Amino acid sequence: MAVSLGVLAERYGCKLHGPPDVQVDRVVSLQSGGDGGLSFFTNPALGAALKDTTATAVILAAADVEVCPVAALVAENPYLVFARVAAELHPQPPLQQGVHASAVVADDCTIPESCQMSAGAVIETGVVFGERCYVGPNCVVGRHSVFGADTRLLAGVLVCHEVRMGDRGLVHSGTVLGSDGFGNARDHSGAWTKVPQTGALVIGDDVEIGANCTIDRGAMGDTEIGSGVRLDNLVHVGHNVSIGQHTAVAGQTGFSGSVYIGARCMIGGHAAFAGHITVADDVVITGGSAVAGSIRKPGMYGGPGPPVEEIGKWRKNVVRVRQLDDMARRLRQLERTVERMNK
Amino acid sequence: MAVSLGVLAERYGCKLHGPPDVQVDRVVSLQSGGDGGLSFFTNPALGAALKDTTATAVILAAADVEVCPVAALVAENPYLVFARVAAELHPQPPLQQGVHASAVVADDCTIPESCQMSAGAVIETGVVFGERCYVGPNCVVGRHSVFGADTRLLAGVLVCHEVRMGDRGLVHSGTVLGSDGFGNARDHSGAWTKVPQTGALVIGDDVEIGANCTIDRGAMGDTEIGSGVRLDNLVHVGHNVSIGQHTAVAGQTGFSGSVYIGARCMIGGHAAFAGHITVADDVVITGGSAVAGSIRKPGMYGGPGPPVEEIGKWRKNVVRVRQLDDMARRLRQLERTVERMNK
Amino acid sequence: MAVSLGVLAERYGCKLHGPPDVQVDRVVSLQSGGDGGLSFFTNPALGAALKDTTATAVILAAADVEVCPVAALVAENPYLVFARVAAELHPQPPLQQGVHASAVVADDCTIPESCQMSAGAVIETGVVFGERCYVGPNCVVGRHSVFGADTRLLAGVLVCHEVRMGDRGLVHSGTVLGSDGFGNARDHSGAWTKVPQTGALVIGDDVEIGANCTIDRGAMGDTEIGSGVRLDNLVHVGHNVSIGQHTAVAGQTGFSGSVYIGARCMIGGHAAFAGHITVADDVVITGGSAVAGSIRKPGMYGGPGPPVEEIGKWRKNVVRVRQLDDMARRLRQLERTVERMNK
Repeated sequence: MAVSLGVLAERYGCKLHGPPDVQVDRVVSLQSGGDGGLSFFTNPALGAALKDTTATAVILAAADVEVCPVAALVAENPYLVFARVAAELHPQPPLQQGVHASAVVADDCTIPESCQMSAGAVIETGVVFGERCYVGPNCVVGRHSVFGADTRLLAGVLVCHEVRMGDRGLVHSGTVLGSDGFGNARDHSGAWTKVPQTGALVIGDDVEIGANCTIDRGAMGDTEIGSGVRLDNLVHVGHNVSIGQHTAVAGQTGFSGSVYIGARCMIGGHAAFAGHITVADDVVITGGSAVAGSIRKPGMYGGPGPPVEEIGKWRKNVVRVRQLDDMARRLRQLERTVERMNK
Repeated sequence: MAVSLGVLAERYGCKLHGPPDVQVDRVVSLQSGGDGGLSFFTNPALGAALKDTTATAVILAAADVEVCPVAALVAENPYLVFARVAAELHPQPPLQQGVHASAVVADDCTIPESCQMSAGAVIETGVVFGERCYVGPNCVVGRHSVFGADTRLLAGVLVCHEVRMGDRGLVHSGTVLGSDGFGNARDHSGAWTKVPQTGALVIGDDVEIGANCTIDRGAMGDTEIGSGVRLDNLVHVGHNVSIGQHTAVAGQTGFSGSVYIGARCMIGGHAAFAGHITVADDVVITGGSAVAGSIRKPGMYGGPGPPVEEIGKWRKNVVRVRQLDDMARRLRQLERTVERMNK
Repeated sequence: MAVSLGVLAERYGCKLHGPPDVQVDRVVSLQSGGDGGLSFFTNPALGAALKDTTATAVILAAADVEVCPVAALVAENPYLVFARVAAELHPQPPLQQGVHASAVVADDCTIPESCQMSAGAVIETGVVFGERCYVGPNCVVGRHSVFGADTRLLAGVLVCHEVRMGDRGLVHSGTVLGSDGFGNARDHSGAWTKVPQTGALVIGDDVEIGANCTIDRGAMGDTEIGSGVRLDNLVHVGHNVSIGQHTAVAGQTGFSGSVYIGARCMIGGHAAFAGHITVADDVVITGGSAVAGSIRKPGMYGGPGPPVEEIGKWRKNVVRVRQLDDMARRLRQLERTVERMNK
């Protein structure tokens, strides 16, 4: 799929610096470049790579056009335009419409002819798909789940019963949607009795969920993933969590039960959220944070620790953390003594 | 499935406040309520929800019966009774007994007729199931694994060879049982040689394991999961770990090799255990903790850090952690100086 | 498979203390021992177990031969020799060559007759396998992926498109190779547009990857896993990460995008790496560390926190972390005051 710079400039509202009839046919990094390659520039740390690039054209901001040695498409949000052009240059392979002979589909499912049910997929009773859905090889979709149009469940996605997902969803391989939450009642001996998880999982439109995630259904009531949410790989979402629209969550982060996350939050990887807390809209949380209490105001928050250092120094400092309360008391005591001495 | 409050009171040993012939047919939250809905109350923070509930009946403790606006079932352990009633009101769908035409089952397996082997399941040589087991779609059960009666392996569970699990087990989708442990021998150049993992994985009765977990087999000897254990999603259990009866572990927690965890422990999510440590019975560990040494006495333990705070404040404090050893020495020095001055 | 100590001594260059014609047929721990069992001793903490062992023979260092009550194979690197003998005593089951009737293999794949494609496996168009590869039940291998000789993909491994892996690779169950990286462009409203991930995943020779890992493909350019790398379970590798030869990574550790890890590093479990950082060769990082910046020199590094302690003490200390900046300022102030007083 090749397209000329002139067409791209018009289609995406960019100002073109360079010949309109030159064509690009793929995206490339500034460093790899190459004839027909289209790249982007937004990170000042890559200034040298921009100056040396052999890409055919670069999408960038007006301020950077001077230093670009090749054709430039000037955009207000270069990365966003790049994302859109990349999708145009690298389209999904077309669906192989129909149900593969080795797929097992219950008689009462609703599966438009425009859908692809791949080899080894198992679709249980009462499942409904919208138009042009893709279900990858060896996926399982549990009873009475419902998916909107243009949903793609990649190979090996496992959907439990009564999961609902909107239009244009994308779920990466190995992810489990709608598993039981962690609900157990304890008796006097310490033994557990499972609490049936009778709620559902409801996911909005335009949601992308990474690989090998686990998104639990609600205990009672639903777990809710808002429209436009982005989850990276190995993210865990407990029962009755609610994640607001357009919130993005990086890999290996976990949400305990009944956490409420606002809209447009950006949450780093390997973070952990205690149960039953609320996070406001537009909150940014740095990777590795332990979020043990609610966050009521937009802003940037972080914890729990300093970055790594050489192990000898670290051990000396870390042992002092255990003496902190003692140190604080001794400091207060000293202040009083010195104050008395100065009177 | 509907049942009257009078029957429930008698069956579960509750005192009934309200009409015995009223029926409930499902569990509901206090907030959603609804005709025929049965809820429970144990969390004082939901006092307002109790007062306003439209549920038909609520299971609660004697002390709370006064403020309940609807019928009440009074129990010593309301949440436990709720769990049992919920299981009665929301039974599992009945098994579709037999082996699905698309399942692949080795000739020498023992699979009672009361079992369900679902579509796409692959059962290797020498596998033994007890009565009424459920093996979900696209599960794989490796050679010579043995499962007790009433086991349920949900869709896409992957069982390696020679795994043993007791009665009434429940394993959620995508979980891997009996994978190789992380055993490698290093040569002088830094290259690794794999150490064959010749042990097994042995799981007791009444164990529930969440989605996308990984439970390794032993290197030599076995990895052991005691009866009544509860593991949440994405939990990692290394080789030769032993987890005692009725211990519960929340999501994304990981146990390095040869960790020994006692009985009835409760372990928060996103916690990490260093190898070869021992944790006593009845230990509670807060979420996000880094457990680097053994814990010899029952009690509640925590670490490693404070909850998140606004990023500017956090950065100021966190940089000081790296100065802690220096601060402690200066504090001691000051104390000596002031002591001398006061002589 | 039984072999005599004399043969083992000669084959692995060990000095034998004991009768050369005695046979061993399996590996055992020192504690379990047993007739025909071969064990090893490297950990001084197990000295008592060595003295009491009933194993038939033990592989150990010269310094320990005196206290060994049974036959001994003396080696410079006992654990490495043990790994090799264990592989000899416990060989993989032979391949069941051919394509199982229930596997679905595209017409244009290259699959030598020496390979095993197990039940339920799905192999998409253009895939190439070397000799003697094993593809386990219900695996999925995406279009145009290429694997070297003697690769083993265990049950339920999910390979996306255009993944390349060298010879003698071993991938454990449930792992996803080549999933899309987490690339999203944000517009002024906070909504995300997916950035197509057009790079690939390239894995060297002799690599072992644990269960339920997720290894993303590159955004542009490739994600690279060097030869001899070892990844434990539930490890997350973001797009465009590069992991150097012979580096080993324990369970649940995560690498954000574009992290560069050197050769021969050893990285503990549950660690987290921020994006775009570089770690030198021969770096050791302790479990649970948060690596937020580059590490330029070989050595041992750690963070982020002290091990757990009793919760009351911990809470007292941890609250002080939030006062650290204040404490440091007060300490400096006191030092100045006392200095002035001493003039």
